Amino acid sequence: MKFKLIKFTIKGVPSNYIILHPSTAENQDLDPGSLLVTEDNTIGFRLITSASVDQGFAGLPPDRFNGESLIEGQDITLISAGVESLTKIIRRKMDKKTLSDREIDDFMSAIAHGLVTKSHMTAFGTAVEINGMHGDEITSVAQSIIKNSRKFSHSGKKVVDKHSIGGIAGNRITPLMIPIISACGLVIPKISTRAITSPAGTVDALETVMPVDLTFEEASEVLDKTNACMVNGATVELGSVADKFLEAVSPLKIDPKEMMIASILAKKKAAGSDFVLIDLPTGKGSKLASREDARSLAYDFSRIGNSLGQHIEAVISPGDKPVGSMIGPSLEMKEVMTILECSGGALSLKRKATSLAGLILEGVQQANRGEGQQMATEIIDSGKALSKFREIVAAQGGDASVTSNSIPHAPYSHVIEAEKSDIVYALDSYSIGVMARAAGAPHDSHAGVIIHVDRGDNLKPGDPIIEIRSHSEGKLSEAIEMMRTAPPIILEQSVLEHITGISN
Amino acid sequence: MKFKLIKFTIKGVPSNYIILHPSTAENQDLDPGSLLVTEDNTIGFRLITSASVDQGFAGLPPDRFNGESLIEGQDITLISAGVESLTKIIRRKMDKKTLSDREIDDFMSAIAHGLVTKSHMTAFGTAVEINGMHGDEITSVAQSIIKNSRKFSHSGKKVVDKHSIGGIAGNRITPLMIPIISACGLVIPKISTRAITSPAGTVDALETVMPVDLTFEEASEVLDKTNACMVNGATVELGSVADKFLEAVSPLKIDPKEMMIASILAKKKAAGSDFVLIDLPTGKGSKLASREDARSLAYDFSRIGNSLGQHIEAVISPGDKPVGSMIGPSLEMKEVMTILECSGGALSLKRKATSLAGLILEGVQQANRGEGQQMATEIIDSGKALSKFREIVAAQGGDASVTSNSIPHAPYSHVIEAEKSDIVYALDSYSIGVMARAAGAPHDSHAGVIIHVDRGDNLKPGDPIIEIRSHSEGKLSEAIEMMRTAPPIILEQSVLEHITGISN
Repeated sequence: MKFKLIKFTIKGVPSNYIILHPSTAENQDLDPGSLLVTEDNTIGFRLITSASVDQGFAGLPPDRFNGESLIEGQDITLISAGVESLTKIIRRKMDKKTLSDREIDDFMSAIAHGLVTKSHMTAFGTAVEINGMHGDEITSVAQSIIKNSRKFSHSGKKVVDKHSIGGIAGNRITPLMIPIISACGLVIPKISTRAITSPAGTVDALETVMPVDLTFEEASEVLDKTNACMVNGATVELGSVADKFLEAVSPLKIDPKEMMIASILAKKKAAGSDFVLIDLPTGKGSKLASREDARSLAYDFSRIGNSLGQHIEAVISPGDKPVGSMIGPSLEMKEVMTILECSGGALSLKRKATSLAGLILEGVQQANRGEGQQMATEIIDSGKALSKFREIVAAQGGDASVTSNSIPHAPYSHVIEAEKSDIVYALDSYSIGVMARAAGAPHDSHAGVIIHVDRGDNLKPGDPIIEIRSHSEGKLSEAIEMMRTAPPIILEQSVLEHITGISN
Repeated sequence: MKFKLIKFTIKGVPSNYIILHPSTAENQDLDPGSLLVTEDNTIGFRLITSASVDQGFAGLPPDRFNGESLIEGQDITLISAGVESLTKIIRRKMDKKTLSDREIDDFMSAIAHGLVTKSHMTAFGTAVEINGMHGDEITSVAQSIIKNSRKFSHSGKKVVDKHSIGGIAGNRITPLMIPIISACGLVIPKISTRAITSPAGTVDALETVMPVDLTFEEASEVLDKTNACMVNGATVELGSVADKFLEAVSPLKIDPKEMMIASILAKKKAAGSDFVLIDLPTGKGSKLASREDARSLAYDFSRIGNSLGQHIEAVISPGDKPVGSMIGPSLEMKEVMTILECSGGALSLKRKATSLAGLILEGVQQANRGEGQQMATEIIDSGKALSKFREIVAAQGGDASVTSNSIPHAPYSHVIEAEKSDIVYALDSYSIGVMARAAGAPHDSHAGVIIHVDRGDNLKPGDPIIEIRSHSEGKLSEAIEMMRTAPPIILEQSVLEHITGISN
């Protein structure tokens, strides 16, 4: 149906709506809320009706006439964008069918155009979670995310990236790896996220020393200047169709592995990376319980990456205890700075970051096999990584003179000490996260915990075990209470359980 | 957490919201939009935050202080109503687990309290559609719908009901059966629906001669007066938690059989019926393709009904051609009136209505086995059914002097005639529905089609085949065009398909 476009304002109506006269809608059998697209399928609208718009005209909010090549007074042909076909695609996945490239692209592109309701996304996510997706379908999802995304351009430079499947407290390797890699002349456009269930995401930690909520344009500029960036995926909007989907389904704890793989690899591809190292922390307390799960996921990443023209390598890393010793946004950043300054910091964190950076350097032939970690370590020890980090901080709008001591700390702290001679049996990454969140992290960016012990340590009475920091006395007490109810540090016990016989 | 209740108005905020100070919410780790319930779990709220409500106070819209036993100034203890637990229930169904009575009741009761988002309902519906439900789970759903519904009371009278699984054009047996059954001294509280995909629902047809949008109280009064009612389920709100669920999932074409069975039987139970006859039209063009599907559904109904203390009987009826000869809201009502007046009407319609009414009369021992249909026919032929129908019309607020001739008809009509001598091979119920909808039914209550032929009829050139009626000339032409593109009357053909050999 052909309409003449006019500007029309209805207060509170979002900009993806188009307004037709109710009789026109009725004659065309279009219900308010249904989806309309331009004839060439490039622009989508959601229908509302109002008798104030004359028949034959289509009203659009004035701001839609900027940018999107729509001109007031032009004729526009609108066709129904098939809620029908979206429900058919969902139905086919419910019936365990394999979706075609076209079906997947229709669904993801409709999300990109703001044409898919949360309920549609939920039904799709639920069906994928139950019935799964084949490799070809995952590739199609990734390709559609890439198609609907803006892309960084790097004019022939070698672009690499890394990605950790989250969940391990203190795994703050990104702000160490990125300056190492870019100091070696490689490009590494790092897009990170905020914490969801952990006490700090990469973005939360980085934000304590520099702006991270950069736009696509700002991030591009930083990349051109420094060969690297460390920015928030939510503001840079790379592969944002994946974020829209995950935002709709994650409040329901729906997070299909297939969509996660497609989303991660598509974002790397849109960022320009052809070599990606995936870090899979595995073990009690991490997202991946067994080696087999981790291996199978590594294989999935590799296969899908290959079909997107990417070389994927993966490492299975220990996920049964925290990596660094300081947990919480500013505490993690402080430990990173200490390592970059070569003035301290957990050896486990420095070793993991240099080991993974080394594998990337080896993977793209910047280092000989077996020599990557040594090269990465030298870049830290020479101070090159620190200068590179400060260069990126400055480019993103932060203060280049940042030091580990310039990062402020929380006003309240409490050190939990050993009550008697004891041996440290285990560190529970999950419970450490719970304690740091009880103290206020990540909203309170200075809250968190500092771990003073490691597995096997011999403790004397009065030795510090763990230190809690917070902006609130109440939250500090809550976190202290955790030591009793969900202890993050497990001390040696001779007896784990005592079964006295089963009575009814 | 304890709060003092105050009246607080925020424009446009629905009445199921409660308003707390943002710091209170933050301290309790409650996100806006999360669900809160009173300590005894009887009243549910959705959280929004506003700094205009002081800490320690909870703001409620003024209209919440009527009826629901909430008093301004009272102390109220609120607890988080576990979105967590809703997602856990959904997750268990996604993992093919059997849900407990408690889990199902928690989920359905949360819907009744307005505490479940459309996305949650969609995820649940999708998981049920894929993984199914056991009989015990279906019974639990029905019991929870009943628990959360108001109930008609009938003080010891015998209460019966019938239900047709829809989809057959002209299957307007309800307005014939209800007066027959109630004229025999039985109570029959009939709750019907509007058309969704068909050219007329029972409610659409009845509405052309009397009000049907009755409240629960109004319907109760009609029942007390006449032993029957014929009302709209949407306004009488019996088992409305089922309607809320189906309203959320049906735009996505999700309609799990299990929820449909639970919903139908729970509504009958809430209406007080212990004997229910289920009509299952089966065959090409109906919802049930095969006898096996119909038998299996009949068995499901019977088993679930039994666990709810109901006696269920089912009939599999022919679903491959329309039942009456007039299709569309007022046309169907006209044919019903003609039958009640004993002045004409399709024999197929009268026979089906008396046959099913007879089975109910036999089932509750009002008639001897084999004599029910005869008894039902006599009630029509004696004029008792007509008086009873008019009694119900008057009780519901309509004009008791209604006749088949007093029902108005559409201004435009067109008769399609046979072009040559021919034999009628088949009547396609689905295409008849499409043609009637093209003419404007059900929105145009006078639009529809009248079928002038039956299977096997010998036609001479000029014999009328089908007559179309509409309020719009344009829609009339559209419906006429259907005779070419999707003919509802199939004429004899010696050759069905001609395969000339496959090239390529």
